[in-house]
Amino acid sequence: MTFRRQSKGRNGHMRHFCFLSGPRRVAWPGMPQEPIEVVYRVRAAKADIDARVEALLLEQTVELPRSALRTAFVRENLVGRVVAIEQVGEAEHLVTLAQPRVAAADDPAQLLNVLFGNCSLQPEIGLEDVRLPAALAGVLGGPRFGIAGLRRLLGIHGRAITASVLKPIGLSVKETASLCATLALSGLDIVKDDHGLADHSFSPFVERVAACLAATRAAEQRTGRRTLYVPNLIGPPATVVRQARQAKELGAGAVMVSPMLVGLPLLNQLAGEIGMPVIAHPAFGGSPRISPVALLGRLFPLFGADAVIYPNFGGRFSYSRGSCAEIAGALRSPGAGIAPAFPVPAGGMTIEGMPAVLDFYGPDVVLLIGGSLLDSPDEAALLSRSSQFVAAVHSHRFTR
Amino acid sequence: MTFRRQSKGRNGHMRHFCFLSGPRRVAWPGMPQEPIEVVYRVRAAKADIDARVEALLLEQTVELPRSALRTAFVRENLVGRVVAIEQVGEAEHLVTLAQPRVAAADDPAQLLNVLFGNCSLQPEIGLEDVRLPAALAGVLGGPRFGIAGLRRLLGIHGRAITASVLKPIGLSVKETASLCATLALSGLDIVKDDHGLADHSFSPFVERVAACLAATRAAEQRTGRRTLYVPNLIGPPATVVRQARQAKELGAGAVMVSPMLVGLPLLNQLAGEIGMPVIAHPAFGGSPRISPVALLGRLFPLFGADAVIYPNFGGRFSYSRGSCAEIAGALRSPGAGIAPAFPVPAGGMTIEGMPAVLDFYGPDVVLLIGGSLLDSPDEAALLSRSSQFVAAVHSHRFTR
Repeated sequence: MTFRRQSKGRNGHMRHFCFLSGPRRVAWPGMPQEPIEVVYRVRAAKADIDARVEALLLEQTVELPRSALRTAFVRENLVGRVVAIEQVGEAEHLVTLAQPRVAAADDPAQLLNVLFGNCSLQPEIGLEDVRLPAALAGVLGGPRFGIAGLRRLLGIHGRAITASVLKPIGLSVKETASLCATLALSGLDIVKDDHGLADHSFSPFVERVAACLAATRAAEQRTGRRTLYVPNLIGPPATVVRQARQAKELGAGAVMVSPMLVGLPLLNQLAGEIGMPVIAHPAFGGSPRISPVALLGRLFPLFGADAVIYPNFGGRFSYSRGSCAEIAGALRSPGAGIAPAFPVPAGGMTIEGMPAVLDFYGPDVVLLIGGSLLDSPDEAALLSRSSQFVAAVHSHRFTR
Repeated sequence: MTFRRQSKGRNGHMRHFCFLSGPRRVAWPGMPQEPIEVVYRVRAAKADIDARVEALLLEQTVELPRSALRTAFVRENLVGRVVAIEQVGEAEHLVTLAQPRVAAADDPAQLLNVLFGNCSLQPEIGLEDVRLPAALAGVLGGPRFGIAGLRRLLGIHGRAITASVLKPIGLSVKETASLCATLALSGLDIVKDDHGLADHSFSPFVERVAACLAATRAAEQRTGRRTLYVPNLIGPPATVVRQARQAKELGAGAVMVSPMLVGLPLLNQLAGEIGMPVIAHPAFGGSPRISPVALLGRLFPLFGADAVIYPNFGGRFSYSRGSCAEIAGALRSPGAGIAPAFPVPAGGMTIEGMPAVLDFYGPDVVLLIGGSLLDSPDEAALLSRSSQFVAAVHSHRFTR
């Protein structure tokens, strides 16, 4: 039996949720497994919505009209069901479909295909939200470390995590390591590569990772505090897998990838193989037709991201406070079988704004500041500003 | 010296092109390599456009304000140039940037990052077109077979290629092979897996590929005509690479992938390793902020697709005649160093519509019809309709 609740999200849009009263939410004869639930935003007039939803339902699995389905097995096992159609605007509907898990073949790429393969090419359809059955989520595996594992690795409990970034691209290995040293000496918990740092001629991957790890170790000797250096993995899959192995051999404790650049299914493969936390960057992930909460808040962690970077509200990107709250909420409350992952708001944040940001997110957050630290006139100023950032986070007392 | 021409595309939008008078289009002191040219559609008022373009220019490589660039090397080698800003609407501009090739590290994933990484998260920016220097295109490799190689493989010259698809998903291996046999007996040149066929429990990959290859060989014995069966590769990269090897060992002559599902850089890796033609499917590739010609017409072939499937105009997808002509044009006239690739219009085409479609595209096209053949009441009707499709293409006399 399925119950529906409507609530008004922080961004003012109507949202809807499906609640469960038992292990099987939407079941039908011949469907042995709990289905995948997908919520779409569909632009269609009320008179046309039923036909449009029928076409969408078929498009995402069998891709043929019912008359062409050929066998009883196909008709009974590969065709999903419409769970709910809710009108939310004059010609706009939120549509919940239940699609058979068997169609997704327990495969991350084929799951994306069922969710938003062909219909991504239809401008009247947007992907709004995703609910996987716990068994399928378990196959994908979700964050292998998550909030708890990253906190154990860092040895930090009860407060927010501080992070900054090594940029711009174009610095030599020596210059990058020097920047890394300064940031580590300021007491930052995490210093990561810019997501645009590849195996560049001016900064070869292995040399850079070795030098930055040495820089953080040297800083730890002086301060007694550990800074986790996180290298960026980027390239075709064979390159990313090789870089992951090299990073591990050199002693890195975590890595970063941009799943939409390298391919979202590679995140899932990497998370299952690498044995250390994976931080996900949203580059190439912007689409007005996939809601940020669906991509960054649900799919990235389902596929194995332990921490997900996203543009914070108020910066040079466009996400609203409501979207950021939704993404953080989805990451921290992922549902059965999946570990909570860290939200990592970033982009345009300042030291002065920290108290408000901390009160907004609470302590289970990684705060990533780049530009407003790095736009310092010299190394002494950079060290001072980074130390202020660290102090602001350490000294914060939450009001809620 | 750079010249600019404006022309009105078939879809009515203004487009602009940059023409070259020599091997280096946009050069500046300290920039040893020909740059990458990127065209963006930018929503901004005229009064704000210069500042918005400066921010975009920096965002895509150094991601910092100029004051934070730290070294002369970064300032001289990692910051691109504005080539052109053309107002095309009240608050809309086409902006051409020249970005340094060194930023892309000759890597397909990092190239995507420079083109549309962070700015994909900014709704006022769209990726409109891409021009790579020939040397970088050569590193990526482009189509390894292309139109000429696929024609040699098929032994077909001077006419359009016919293709259909094995669907719906949910058929058993035996049922799929039976369908494949019927389609091959009708004389189709290519029969491909549905892009939603994965390593499903009801249709394991190796069994399916072996059975379909056997079906096409048996049909060839009867008809004397070869049908190329093209299996779909899908999964995380390790799975796709394994499936490619298995397909080759079983005797397949070409493969299909959906680059946006499996990861666009994997297409580039696969094309370089596999030694057979790769057909690309557009699933998960829809974005109103990446123009179809940029993604399907330029990036897919640059990364190695020998043939690119896209939604034809007039079907259940939304591409206009103008967009389809642009995609086909980009695939067939890719510029220096890159082989021409086959356009593969698909979706909603009928046998009755073939003459008009053929006159629109000319002979260098693969025509892919699925639903309107497969919605046949029985195998005899399917064989008859497929044979009509084949006859319509073979007998067509082009009017242009």
